[in-house]
This record gives sequence, C-alpha cells and structure tokens, in this order.
Amino acid sequence: MEILKEIKVLIKPVGNMVIEKSVTNLLDLLRRMDVDISDECGGRGTCGKCKVRILNKTYAINENEKLLLSETEISDGIHLACQVILTEDTEVELLSRTEKSTMRKLIHSVGVTYEVDSKLKKLYLELPPPNIMNPIDDIGNFEMHLPDTSKKIKIPISLLKTFSAFLRKTDYKVTFVISPDKLINIEAGDTTSRMYGLAFDLGTTTIAGSLINVINGDELAVIAETNPQQSYGADVISRINYAKDQPGGLSKLQSIVVDTINSMIESLIANLDVSFRDIYEISIAGNTIMTHILLGIDPRYIGESPYVPTFRRIAAINAEEVGLTLLPKAQVIVLPNISGYVGGDITAMILAKEIHRDDRISLGIDIGTNGEIVLGSKRGIKCCSTAAGPAFEGVHISCGMRAENGAIDKVVFGSDDIYYEVIGDVEPKGICGSGLLDVVAGMLEQGVIDTSGRIKPPEEIENEFYRNRVFQNDAGQNFIVVPKERTLKNAIIVVTQRDIREIQLAKAAINAGIQILITDLGIDPSQIECVYLAGAFGSYINKYSALKIGLLPSSIDVEKIHFVGNTAIAGARKYLLSERSRSETEVILAMTDYVELSMRVDFQEKFAQSMSFG
Amino acid sequence: MEILKEIKVLIKPVGNMVIEKSVTNLLDLLRRMDVDISDECGGRGTCGKCKVRILNKTYAINENEKLLLSETEISDGIHLACQVILTEDTEVELLSRTEKSTMRKLIHSVGVTYEVDSKLKKLYLELPPPNIMNPIDDIGNFEMHLPDTSKKIKIPISLLKTFSAFLRKTDYKVTFVISPDKLINIEAGDTTSRMYGLAFDLGTTTIAGSLINVINGDELAVIAETNPQQSYGADVISRINYAKDQPGGLSKLQSIVVDTINSMIESLIANLDVSFRDIYEISIAGNTIMTHILLGIDPRYIGESPYVPTFRRIAAINAEEVGLTLLPKAQVIVLPNISGYVGGDITAMILAKEIHRDDRISLGIDIGTNGEIVLGSKRGIKCCSTAAGPAFEGVHISCGMRAENGAIDKVVFGSDDIYYEVIGDVEPKGICGSGLLDVVAGMLEQGVIDTSGRIKPPEEIENEFYRNRVFQNDAGQNFIVVPKERTLKNAIIVVTQRDIREIQLAKAAINAGIQILITDLGIDPSQIECVYLAGAFGSYINKYSALKIGLLPSSIDVEKIHFVGNTAIAGARKYLLSERSRSETEVILAMTDYVELSMRVDFQEKFAQSMSFG
Repeated sequence: MEILKEIKVLIKPVGNMVIEKSVTNLLDLLRRMDVDISDECGGRGTCGKCKVRILNKTYAINENEKLLLSETEISDGIHLACQVILTEDTEVELLSRTEKSTMRKLIHSVGVTYEVDSKLKKLYLELPPPNIMNPIDDIGNFEMHLPDTSKKIKIPISLLKTFSAFLRKTDYKVTFVISPDKLINIEAGDTTSRMYGLAFDLGTTTIAGSLINVINGDELAVIAETNPQQSYGADVISRINYAKDQPGGLSKLQSIVVDTINSMIESLIANLDVSFRDIYEISIAGNTIMTHILLGIDPRYIGESPYVPTFRRIAAINAEEVGLTLLPKAQVIVLPNISGYVGGDITAMILAKEIHRDDRISLGIDIGTNGEIVLGSKRGIKCCSTAAGPAFEGVHISCGMRAENGAIDKVVFGSDDIYYEVIGDVEPKGICGSGLLDVVAGMLEQGVIDTSGRIKPPEEIENEFYRNRVFQNDAGQNFIVVPKERTLKNAIIVVTQRDIREIQLAKAAINAGIQILITDLGIDPSQIECVYLAGAFGSYINKYSALKIGLLPSSIDVEKIHFVGNTAIAGARKYLLSERSRSETEVILAMTDYVELSMRVDFQEKFAQSMSFG
Repeated sequence: MEILKEIKVLIKPVGNMVIEKSVTNLLDLLRRMDVDISDECGGRGTCGKCKVRILNKTYAINENEKLLLSETEISDGIHLACQVILTEDTEVELLSRTEKSTMRKLIHSVGVTYEVDSKLKKLYLELPPPNIMNPIDDIGNFEMHLPDTSKKIKIPISLLKTFSAFLRKTDYKVTFVISPDKLINIEAGDTTSRMYGLAFDLGTTTIAGSLINVINGDELAVIAETNPQQSYGADVISRINYAKDQPGGLSKLQSIVVDTINSMIESLIANLDVSFRDIYEISIAGNTIMTHILLGIDPRYIGESPYVPTFRRIAAINAEEVGLTLLPKAQVIVLPNISGYVGGDITAMILAKEIHRDDRISLGIDIGTNGEIVLGSKRGIKCCSTAAGPAFEGVHISCGMRAENGAIDKVVFGSDDIYYEVIGDVEPKGICGSGLLDVVAGMLEQGVIDTSGRIKPPEEIENEFYRNRVFQNDAGQNFIVVPKERTLKNAIIVVTQRDIREIQLAKAAINAGIQILITDLGIDPSQIECVYLAGAFGSYINKYSALKIGLLPSSIDVEKIHFVGNTAIAGARKYLLSERSRSETEVILAMTDYVELSMRVDFQEKFAQSMSFG
C-alpha cells in the first residue's frame, strides 16, 4: 500500500473525525466507520443512494454523478460518496441517517493492514495409483508427494478411515488441506481456489464475526449479534458466578455462545458461494472469561484473588471439540490472553495497531464494564484493567441506556439550546455512554457543574437557558437534558447529581489507570504519540468531551486521538491470516507486563485525585 | 546383561532345543518356552512342584532341594527347576505335563533384550501457587516448570477443563504424564514410581498381551486369548470379506477385537497393584489386516490387487478414539506394517531379533495361513508372504486339528512303534501342524512315502510295522498314525495321500519363498547364519522334521535354527519401552523390500520344484 499524506476527514453533523493514511474512497471510509448509508448498486455509482454533502467543495463532479444528481444538488456540494476519492482534508455532511439495527454494533476497524502468510495450505495432488510393481500404501503415497517429505503430517483417525476409499472414488485427484502439520480435510478434485476462515470478536455484550478469504485476505461478510449470555449476567463477574453456582451453568453458557457462533456462521455464508466445508480455521479474540467459557473451561479462578486464568496461550483445538458446526477438524485458534482481566481482545488490539513494533509510544483503551488500558511501544508494554463500572454503558445512570434505538448518543451544548442525535432517528428515550460524556462536558463548559462535580443551584449559573434547566428535588440538583415534550415517553431526560458521581468514578478509574501505566513505564504524558480508542463505546465518543471531562489525561493532544473501531476482530483477522502475526502474539505476551491495580496504594491516590474535573 | 557362553538346553521327551546366551534359571527358561509346570511358591523353592530330571547330572543339590526331594529322586537326577541355574549344555526331562489351556498359545520369546529409554515421562512438580504479585495462569505455571521450557506440551481440552481445579485440590503437588509432547494425564501427588504399558500381539487366531513396567522394562503379567473374530472367518481374507460385505461388518469386527483387548487388560491387572489408570501406552504388533480392523479402517483394498493397505506407519492414537478402556489419552502405538501381507508382527520380529542391525544374514519365518519370510542383515532385508495355506494349522487335513487339547503335537517314528505326545495328556483326537510335520518326516525316514510324496503300497515298504500301517481305499493309500483303540473317539487317526499333497503344497510355498529371497538378496544359502522360527507353529515344530520334509532348505544346518517364540509381543515390548526401537522401525521400513511373489515366474518354478521331498 502506497503511503501518501495524512488526510483528515470530519464527518458531520456531530463530528466523527478520522485520519486516513492514504487516498480513500469515501463510501469505503463511511462503511468502515459503520455509518449506515445506502448503496444498492454496491458502490458502482448507479443507484444514487449514497448522497453526501462535501462542505469544502473541492471535488469535481464526474459523469456518474452528473446523471444522478440535480443541478441544485450539484451546486449545493452534494456528491455520491462512492464516486469521491478523498485526496485532502475533507468535511463531509451526512444527509440522512438510515434506520440502525436495534443495538449499535461495531465490526470494522480503521487503519489496519493485513498480511497473508497463513500456514493453512491446500495441496492439490494427482497421485499415481498404486500398482503391483509399486504397491505403496495410500498414506505413504500421499506422504511421498508432499513438497517437504521430511515433514510429518498428522492424519486424524476419522480421515484415515475414509482415506483409501476417497482416493479411489476421486481417481486419486484430491486436494489436501493442511494446517500446519495436521491434515484438516481431503477434498475431491482441485479446490485450491477456495479457502476461507473466520475472525470473531467474542465480547461480553456483542459477538461480531467476519468471513475471510484466506487466500487473499479479503473480508466477504460481517455480522454482529448480541451475546445472548446477557440473560445470565451482564458482566463477566456475573457470568463467572453463574457458571460456578448454577448446576450445569458452565455448559449452559458454553452452549449458548457456541450456538450463537454457529448461527452467525450460517448467516455469514448465506447468499455467498461458500459452504461451511470451505472454512478451515476460526480465529477468536475475546476477553479471558469469554474464551474460557467458549472452550468449556471453568473461569471461576479468574473471579477469585489472585485472579488467574487456566490458560493464557492455548494450542489450536478441533472444531468438533468445541461443538462448532464446521468441519470436525477445522481449527479453533484463540488469541492468547494477557491476564485474567486483559484478554485476547487486547492482544488483538496491540497486534492490529502494531503497538509492539511501533517506535512511538501508544496508549490503547478499550472501555466497557472494565476499561482495559495498554501503554507502550516496541520497547515494552504495560497494561491494566480498571473496574470502570458500567456507567459508560448507561447502567446505574438514572436516564442511562445502552446504545440502542432511542438513545441520545451525541450532544452539543449551544449557547441557548442543546442539540442531540438519537440512534434510529426517533424521539429520545434516554442517554447512552457517549451522550453522557457529551452532556457532562457540556455542563462543565456551560458552568452547570463545578470542578468538584457539583451541579450548581440555578442562582449560580450565568447562562439563562441552562439556569432554567436545573431543578432541585430530595436527591439534590438535577439537570434537564431533554424536556418532556420532546421525549418518546413524555418524561424529561435528566442527569442527576448521583449520575455525575457515577461518571466521575468511571472516568477517574480510567484516568488513574492511565496515570499508573505512565508512571510504571517511566515516561512523561507528552511522550504519548498515539491514543487508540477501541471498541463500541470508544468509537462513538467525542474526543473533545473525553478530554474535557478528564477521561483521558488533559496533556493529550486531541489530534493524537484515533478511533480505531473493532480492533478485536481486526486482530483476530490478522491472527487468522498470518503466521507471523501468530508468532508475534508470543512476543506481545513476553513484552507486556500486567499491572495489578488492586494492590497499588498509588492507584488509590491517583483515583481520588482524578475524581475532580479540574 | 553379561554375555557368557552359549548354553544348549534340550528339553525331553520330545526335544525342544533352546540356545541360551547366558546363565539362566531353568524354571524361567521353561516358562519362557511355555512349558506348563507348577510353581505354587513362585519359584522360591518351597513348594517342590517344579521337579525335572537333569539327564547329564552335572548340577549340585542345594539346601531347598534336599528338604523337598527324596533320596531316590536325588540319586535319579531329579531337581527343582527353580533351583537350577544352567551354566552348561544340559538335557532336561520333564516329568509330567500338566493340563494345558484349551488352545496352545505362545506368549514368550527367547533371547530378546529390552532397552528402557521411553519418551513416556512422569514429572512430579510442586508448583508455587500463584499469588497477587505473580498471578501466573495455571498452564503457564506448569510450562514454566518444565525441565525444557522451550518444548511445547500439547494439553488436550479434556485435561484443560480440570487443570485448575485439580491443581488446587492437590495443593499444587501433581505428577504430569507426558508422552512425548502431549500431556496424557495429571495425577495427585508423586506417582512417578508407577508407570505401566502394554505390549500386544494381535494375531488372526490368537491375541496375546503382556503388562510391562515401563520404568524398568519388567513383565508383570501375560495373557493369551483366542481371537473371537474367528467366528467371522478363520483367515484374514475371510475377515476382509466380512468387513466389506456384511452391513456393519467392519465395526462389528472392530468392537470384537476391542472388547477382547479390554477384557484381557482387565485380566492382566487383576490381582496386581496396577490400575488401568497407571497404563499410559499400549504397543500393538499385528498383521496389516488386523491392525486396520482394530482402528476401524476398512482393510478391503488389501484384499484386491495391488493389495495396498491404507497405512504402513501411523501416528499414536488416543485410547478413547479406539475404544480401549484405558485413560482417554493413553497412547495406542501400532508397529508399522511393511506391506499388505507383511505386517507389524514381522516388523516386530526383525526388531526383536535385531536382524536389521546384525552383520550376519538371518532368515526369519512366521508360519500361519500365510508364511511370512524375511531374509537379510544390516545391509538390507527382503521379505515376502507366501500363501502356505492352512495345512500347518491342521485345516484341510483329514485328521488335522488346531493345537488344542487332544491334538498329537509331537511324533517320533521308532523302528517298531510310533511315539507321540498329546496336548492335555489325553487320548488323541487328531494331529496338529507340528505333529503332521513329524509324521511326514517319519514316513519319509521309514520309507513309507517316496520323494515324490507318494504313499507306497504295503508291498513296497520294508519295515513290517509300517507296512501294516498302510491301507488302501477309494482315495488311494492311507497311513494309520494311531489305531482306533488308542484314540479318544475310537476312530483311527490317519494321514491320507491328499493330506501329504496339502503338506507338500504348504512346505513348497515356504521353501520357494525362501529361495526367491535368497536369489533376490544375491546370497548363497550357506551364508544364512541364523534361522528364526517364530510364532506358535514355528515354536513347536521339530527342526529335524522341518529340514527332513524340506520346509526349510536342506542346506541349512540344524544348529542354526532357533525357536524364538512370540517375537510379535517381544517386538511390541521393545517398541513400547524404547524410543530408539521406535525410530529403528523407520530404518527397518526403509531398508526392507517387499517382494510380491504373485508376479514372479521364477517363484512358480521354484514352487513346483519344491514340491518334491528329494
């Protein structure tokens, strides 16, 4: 890939900013950012559905656009996103947001490159049939025609049982699927052009999967589903407890996740010329608890001090041993965990962003119920997990909700009004994490709260609009984000003093975690050159809000903050496609120190200090 | 083991000769030759049951013998076999033959040495429990304490599932069973002193097994059972057909053999302080068809030209995949086959007798329905399989029977009577293979048949006793071996002209096979320095009879012929105990040429020539 200059792309109305490292097709970029935009023609410039407004109007109109856009549209700066190749800094305005799925799920990632050097190989052989002068055994015949005859290929007994009959049925013209020293399958004829794999992000809340052509690295289909284990506990601790305390709990949780992955695989290959028999490997990045449960390994000891998992690294497992409806010997490869609370999804982030090979110091953050933080460079990496609590997921917040239809996810405080965006373009029901961040940032900016986090009584607030939005009840001061007439349920959407405290606790945990890693790595915050915000929450927040409320250290320049999307699935895809990536996870494990915060007095101090908005 | 001089031991009355390479306890020797002799005290010289007569009277009487033998017995040369250490050539007369089991089964082998260098290892570790300062994952903790941390040990998912709980239950004091890079089991506490394996001879007719202490190589128990697959076909070809033609035939044959091995394992450990959980490997030497069936692999293509098996070499298989009631991950290791009709039992013979490392040229013969023959030295080995037919198993012979109770198994033609020995010391019912050989040899010696194999009419026979034993009926001349008054069923035991022809066909096939190998190896018969007769039939025949009738080339000196017993089980035991032996089977496979006789015109010629007794 040719490296050109950096291009900043600002997506309006509410302001996602992406830094692209090369010339990019605008529709591709929007898709990678999970912007829902119609493209019925598949980006060929014939359906006219992907209209956007380019605000700095520097792009020429091409022939396709002339056919599909009116004079007025053209003069108004409207383009078809699929026809725009971004070559310089650009502001893009989305004209409409189409209906989103019930829950916002992030599958794509930004700025990850994929090498293809898989040890999964297909070998088409036309074996000479044995004859009376050379009555070679069938396995010996196969072994003799391997490119490297010194290499022993382990043949599972199930394939041995069909081996001889299959050779004769296919006239000795067969394709052998080998990975890396095991025979995975035998196929009739030459099937070397078909070789697929899966990359999965096994999250506590969401499971996302991607179907990959292992020959060229291309992604053919993506899917995301809510993890139905949610009914058995929203967070990993309650899942551990369910597995531990309920009879058959572990196997129930396992079969739920296995069934979900199976049905996702079915959806991924539906409508494509791909059979489950063409899929030979599934690469899975998940947190440590989820990967233990997937394999049916009791995660209980991760839940008790000293919080150790059974495994960090685990050898490839046959699909049949996990219960996946793939070929019995398809390989399940799990990205290694770093510790009990820093899982393979974080290894995947490091791998995807190549933090371990980067000369620059990078800070990577994945915020969920736990906030996993990594800080480092090729000279060494520190990581920790902070119990940020579920505030950023809208839990324990009076009007909080998950990022589903009806959730306010972006808020801008104007001088005399509050502007907001609602998922699904409906009347708002509540506020999700990214919206909360914006609200707290806005309240700070407009002087509604002071640096201690106290909501000021109306008389202390200068701006009249905001003064009128504060009212007191038994629990203290409250701030009205949306008056009741504008809400779906005709009930005001408020932020309470207690909500502010929850946000403070959550952001303080993340901030203090970052500070501990900065201290332990022995660097100055100014030395951090890249900040990667990964995962669903991290990809939808407003950077300025995050800095404003002190989620991120104030010393970090906003320009250094990058939304990197779903790096778990991106890392899983790299792991699937590249042997070098697989061996690099060994390097990552060796060079990454896990910092246990629960034992650190200085963490408690930094945590207390970070509560302030000062 | 100290090498002293060779000791010849002749066992009377009928004359098994054994060459021992070292000082030997007489009782041990008799046991190895499968002589049924009582030893209620376990060879401690206190029960007085193992009385034998030493004919050359060179051994002193010791204190134990003085207590248990009468004056008369002592002066008569009687000893307790358990108290006699053979130091020079000795003739031993057995005083009584105790009741034998229904079928004579050979388990032991002679003159095989066992090295112990198994890669099956036990490792007792007292792992440091993880703590909050060092929250190492349980697998990582284990891997870190391996003697060679660079070696990756594959841990099966079933053991991973119990790993963490087991460590905690056992206070982190556990023994890991590893072979060679797989974790086979985890055991509480230090169990390094207990490590057992099994060596099995998987024969078409008989299955023999042996329980081995893998730490020191000792054999703790032996067992032999009739292969119950016999009901589905006496020979391998009919087994192949049953597996191929009957619905579910293959899996029926497999489960029969697996069930038999399972019950034999139960018997082997009964009364011993050994559990099936202490057994980690089972080494199996069998013919190619039997090993295919054991693993559930269709042997049909061995039955059709060009007679190729699915596999010659096969990697270790988990016991659970075969259905053996051992630990699920106990390793089933199968001695490699040389070809479709020269199986792992022959590889075992070469390995046991170290033909492939011997400077001398050895001829090894295992006679059953097929006669497998190997000829060679460390400079190269040729082998073949001849369809000798079942004559030597007593099949297709008018009074033939298997070597069971009631079978005449040894015959000496005196000048005026025929002396014979009957298995089980009962009245005779028929003649088994070794007896037939003696009868034909005796008939030749006494001029009852001529060199063409024709039974002479009485008038042509000089000796009066033998003249009276020949009578004619519609089918030609017949020879009475036992008159009816001396038989169990009051029916004469005869050898017919047709029986002689069957024996001629069988011996000609073996003899011609040997000649082809001699030709192909480019040697002179006189260069053969050792002849090994292996297997049940080969171990009970009279060498002189074998030479007399031309089963073996007449150029072979009787002194060079050695009964080597069950070399299949001996080879399986070596394979079990020694990594070097395992890698040597690779050498054996590489250096052993299979000669397909069905294509050879010169074989047909030599076969025709060998029909004669000239």
